[in-house]
Amino acid sequence: MTTIDTLPGSIVEDRYPTRCKNYPMMLRRPDPVVWPTESGTTAAGPIDADTVSDYDARGFLTIDSLLSPDEVALYRDELDRLAADPAVKADERTVVEKTSNEVRSIFEVHRISPAIAELVRDPRVVDRARQLLGSDVYVHQSRINYKPGFKGGSFYWHSDFETWHAEDGMPAMRAVSISIALTDNHPFNGGLMIMPGSHRTFVSCVGETPADHYKESLREQEIGTPDNDSLTVLAGRYGIEQFTGPAGSAVMFDSNCMHGSNGNITPFPRSNIFVVFNSVENTLVEPFAAPQPRPPFIASRDFTPVGRE
Amino acid sequence: MTTIDTLPGSIVEDRYPTRCKNYPMMLRRPDPVVWPTESGTTAAGPIDADTVSDYDARGFLTIDSLLSPDEVALYRDELDRLAADPAVKADERTVVEKTSNEVRSIFEVHRISPAIAELVRDPRVVDRARQLLGSDVYVHQSRINYKPGFKGGSFYWHSDFETWHAEDGMPAMRAVSISIALTDNHPFNGGLMIMPGSHRTFVSCVGETPADHYKESLREQEIGTPDNDSLTVLAGRYGIEQFTGPAGSAVMFDSNCMHGSNGNITPFPRSNIFVVFNSVENTLVEPFAAPQPRPPFIASRDFTPVGRE
Repeated sequence: MTTIDTLPGSIVEDRYPTRCKNYPMMLRRPDPVVWPTESGTTAAGPIDADTVSDYDARGFLTIDSLLSPDEVALYRDELDRLAADPAVKADERTVVEKTSNEVRSIFEVHRISPAIAELVRDPRVVDRARQLLGSDVYVHQSRINYKPGFKGGSFYWHSDFETWHAEDGMPAMRAVSISIALTDNHPFNGGLMIMPGSHRTFVSCVGETPADHYKESLREQEIGTPDNDSLTVLAGRYGIEQFTGPAGSAVMFDSNCMHGSNGNITPFPRSNIFVVFNSVENTLVEPFAAPQPRPPFIASRDFTPVGRE
Repeated sequence: MTTIDTLPGSIVEDRYPTRCKNYPMMLRRPDPVVWPTESGTTAAGPIDADTVSDYDARGFLTIDSLLSPDEVALYRDELDRLAADPAVKADERTVVEKTSNEVRSIFEVHRISPAIAELVRDPRVVDRARQLLGSDVYVHQSRINYKPGFKGGSFYWHSDFETWHAEDGMPAMRAVSISIALTDNHPFNGGLMIMPGSHRTFVSCVGETPADHYKESLREQEIGTPDNDSLTVLAGRYGIEQFTGPAGSAVMFDSNCMHGSNGNITPFPRSNIFVVFNSVENTLVEPFAAPQPRPPFIASRDFTPVGRE
């Protein structure tokens, strides 16, 4: 086990070493999945006990109709408006597809769009995150994703936590993502695939993070990519599930779920709103395996609790 | 409607013009799907009447366990043996993946492997083709396909008939393909997607076929590719279905089904045996839209009926 300096004068044991060896490792997760509150119990919230227990075991949960059809229409209009705005397209927080020059993602979108800021504060969203993480939460990252039809690219297998730990300095697995579908997710249009149960295993990746890695890694993951053997073991043990459902449904998943998505040749595009909540008791330190932290629009260092501003 | 010369002295009206205009067209198919025999009735065979009727309406049918588990094991060994054979890898009938140098397809495999020749002659296979096409049949094309895990590429939407007509000179839509799965087809590992009902519409493609087009088109389809508008109309009208099922199951589909497959980032590879049967009453003439016919290992000009040698 590696020990590394994180802040002047302190030594923090790194329980999740990655990008520091020339061989991969599969490590058992010491952190809980559903975090207890200070009083030692699961926080109250909108998620029923069975679903919490299932989330604990599988690392994700789905919500059938988080948004009404009217809300879906509203947010789709907002996404179209943002993607068509020349100022937004020129913004460094916007990622443009290599080949087509089309907008693929817009980061820190809750600071760009008041409508999305409101959604992040919505009790249907933030109260679920608080319940699972057992504390107040802040937005570590927000974005909207557009995956076009016909030529939508794949997103290779990864654990978000591996990147957030290595490149952003997130200490523990105490973060949860919510992806809210604004288009129908079929089994065949490149939706999210998760290996249920994989969140209990940390796959330590080979390689060393280069400077400014985020500029490339947002387009195509290379460093921080799990090895084939680990993926084969995890897929063999846990299988693969796909998140399918109509526009307005949502999936919440633990920061360490092994997930990815295939490409999409169908005419059916996909778009979603994606928000990562991190516990205010798990704020970022120095990166564990990168020369410098990523910019704040990708990994916020404003730890103000959502709804407590 | 175009008229073209096909054989010296004859003029054949081309009911399926393609690659001859600078705009796409969607044309109604005049050919039947299930072909009557000379006596005007559907041929007898192993497919029950409901399934024949469903095939007529949707353009494809599935067979739950065409091969037994023992047979699957036998043919998987045969595929491994062929892919590992240096003489096979060097053969012009073998297609090798651009990036990985791995075998992706082996054409005319029923002339390379006696085991696969026997499968083609098996009544479970050939009698079904005879039943649907209402006549004796010959092998227009055979191949085995290997789609690796982790980095399996996509195969874009196409009608096989469009290519066979344009480049091989197949006059009518009187051919059927069978794809026999040797690995499990999940909804997420790049299996076949079909638009059910699309076989009734011929999508005439834009462009002109260059010489030796097949050398590139086997790797990545460009010419002969349907336009986005036609695909959007067909997918909107018919939807998309995926062929899923365990190893040993099979799908038979009409030559004009609009089909394709997504990429595959999962660790689960796919392999299958693929045979195209054409009616002996529909043998090849000169290509309808290409400067020269493709080589016989891709489009056979040996019209000997299967099982009547």
